[in-house]
Amino acid sequence: MFDFSYYTPTKVVFGKGTESKTAELIKEFGGTKILIHYGGGSVVRSGLLRRVTDSLDNAGISYVTLGGAVPNPHLSLVYEGIELCKKENVDFLLAVGGGSAIDSAKAIGYGVANEGDVWDFYDYKRKATGCLPLGVILTIAATGSEMSDSSVITKEEGLVKRGYSSDFGRPKFAIMNPELTMTLPDYQTACGCTDIMMHTMERYFTNGGNMEITDSIAEGLLRTVMKNAVILRDDPKDYDARAEIMWAGSLSHNGLTGCGNNGGDWMTHKIEHELGGLFDVAHGAGLAAVWGSWARYVYKDCLPRFKRFALNVMGMGDVGSDEEIALKGIEALEDFFRSIKMPTNLRELGVDATDDDLILMAKKCADGLPNGEFGSAKVLNEQAILEIFKASV
Amino acid sequence: MFDFSYYTPTKVVFGKGTESKTAELIKEFGGTKILIHYGGGSVVRSGLLRRVTDSLDNAGISYVTLGGAVPNPHLSLVYEGIELCKKENVDFLLAVGGGSAIDSAKAIGYGVANEGDVWDFYDYKRKATGCLPLGVILTIAATGSEMSDSSVITKEEGLVKRGYSSDFGRPKFAIMNPELTMTLPDYQTACGCTDIMMHTMERYFTNGGNMEITDSIAEGLLRTVMKNAVILRDDPKDYDARAEIMWAGSLSHNGLTGCGNNGGDWMTHKIEHELGGLFDVAHGAGLAAVWGSWARYVYKDCLPRFKRFALNVMGMGDVGSDEEIALKGIEALEDFFRSIKMPTNLRELGVDATDDDLILMAKKCADGLPNGEFGSAKVLNEQAILEIFKASV
Repeated sequence: MFDFSYYTPTKVVFGKGTESKTAELIKEFGGTKILIHYGGGSVVRSGLLRRVTDSLDNAGISYVTLGGAVPNPHLSLVYEGIELCKKENVDFLLAVGGGSAIDSAKAIGYGVANEGDVWDFYDYKRKATGCLPLGVILTIAATGSEMSDSSVITKEEGLVKRGYSSDFGRPKFAIMNPELTMTLPDYQTACGCTDIMMHTMERYFTNGGNMEITDSIAEGLLRTVMKNAVILRDDPKDYDARAEIMWAGSLSHNGLTGCGNNGGDWMTHKIEHELGGLFDVAHGAGLAAVWGSWARYVYKDCLPRFKRFALNVMGMGDVGSDEEIALKGIEALEDFFRSIKMPTNLRELGVDATDDDLILMAKKCADGLPNGEFGSAKVLNEQAILEIFKASV
Repeated sequence: MFDFSYYTPTKVVFGKGTESKTAELIKEFGGTKILIHYGGGSVVRSGLLRRVTDSLDNAGISYVTLGGAVPNPHLSLVYEGIELCKKENVDFLLAVGGGSAIDSAKAIGYGVANEGDVWDFYDYKRKATGCLPLGVILTIAATGSEMSDSSVITKEEGLVKRGYSSDFGRPKFAIMNPELTMTLPDYQTACGCTDIMMHTMERYFTNGGNMEITDSIAEGLLRTVMKNAVILRDDPKDYDARAEIMWAGSLSHNGLTGCGNNGGDWMTHKIEHELGGLFDVAHGAGLAAVWGSWARYVYKDCLPRFKRFALNVMGMGDVGSDEEIALKGIEALEDFFRSIKMPTNLRELGVDATDDDLILMAKKCADGLPNGEFGSAKVLNEQAILEIFKASV
């Protein structure tokens, strides 16, 4: 068991109609001039944005808006947001949307609160010393960014996708109304469920230290997500299933499922980030497409965890050698992915990558790792990453 | 499933030697003049208090100290602490100890930050509008007060024990070094494990709404505590078991195991509070002594939860009627209590209560309930409480 810190100051307000509390929460956390940041037109078309601006109008809170956050959110929009905040003296950010809007808002917050180029933080050059306070109205359950310390931004030049994590970036509040996620396309719902599972699995597949209570929470969370992902595949309007997935998304990435382990593996995420950077695929689908290849490459070096996963999460019987049980668990998760129409390789993902593409992605991935290697289940370098990409074609 | 709020802003620093970070954390949260509040002599004898004051001296942080917090902490000491804080211009409280020191410090914090008599908050007369910021160095895993919004204080006059909950009372940070709990007497360790379980069980036994992911966390937590309580019975120095119990204690009462249910039952706690007020018994032991009688009185009105508890927590087989399975689960938990030397009735608790005592406690308990009744598994009034007391003799 490893020492750990746990810090999740985000105030969660969860349930039907909770977006009506936006103005009240902004006031509670001291916001007076707001940048409302959102993504595509769905928050406009659904009337959500209008409801939010109406409530701010009624409360006498002034605001400016900035739409346009896209999946794998772009650095150029972040720069635009920073300029807008400075010009308008914004003192509080409100992200309305999913991980793209939230991550983009976090980056804007870092850019306003710190001198110099905000990309420095994502390029591992220096650390932020603050962030503009941020609130969230969540409309997609997936990235967990509504409670997490992380954000991921893509620099268009060179298509470089990088993450930055800091407690300053944890939102002050998160409004979570499961009803707001009901109109998501099925594919996006399934991508979200995959991303949620992966946030906990990245923490779960480690060598060198785990905590029993953390394991029990992680395993319960994974079982809950799988069960409710299937419910939503068949009935996207099931409120309780939406709520289970939404709350699982926050718990999966706020740190809870990593307490006492050694920080987690995270290589599936890092490998997928290259896919997302080069091919602009949906993050969750990208994770599903490479996970099996990663798992088969590393499982012998992390056998006790893969066996435990097979038994306690995938419900395999304790029959056969540890390696056989572990492999059955990997296959069972791939079967689950297929059952919710997630890809299990690049072809199914719709990515037709050339050998040169794979080599480029492996190189960029390794370039982004400290000393060119990373991982806890197994430490991977450029060559290992390339092998995993090749196996995932 | 019910709507919920979840707010746990406490920064947890968990692991060996983490008390060395006290001064750094106090500075991070803006403390400049500290009241160090502790209980009995053990934090003095162990050298912990000296290590803490040395670290504050080295960091140039000034402080005053106030010891003497006792189990079921007294209102008179709270008044003394309030006066001391006002006289010394204290702006930050540091509780070193278990639930008694923390709860007493919270009450002091309310008293300093609000005009008028602090007992008003515990007597349901009005609500606090703030609390002096508070940090914790935890030495007993039990009450979960290090992350919770609650505190319980006993007014000596009339031996009235009452709780008050408010987000203002949530500690800014909690330093948790499992090694600090290793010298606890076995009885106190077992009492702590019981209290931890009960904080989750009070939330678990509800009617009218539960959340699957919350249930899975609650059940995993309860199994973890039972397993590690037995390990500590046999080897009190087992670090990993101490750590599992310590973290379970925080998660059990910070709100996590109640998300999506309807607030919980809490009648076992309220019944025990009367025992604690009149006979000054250890809180955990008091809970164990009355739980079985409570459970047998209410289980038919909350049968699905009692059945689920028997199957998923106590590992009973799914054989027999629901009522039979539920009763087996209740018996199995009483067997567990006995296995860690916890009482399962008042006699084993060492309380020789007269009929008049029982009548008095039932009356005081009902007097402290809104409209004289409370509970979710089953709503209990004065007569029902008396029946439970009588069955627990």
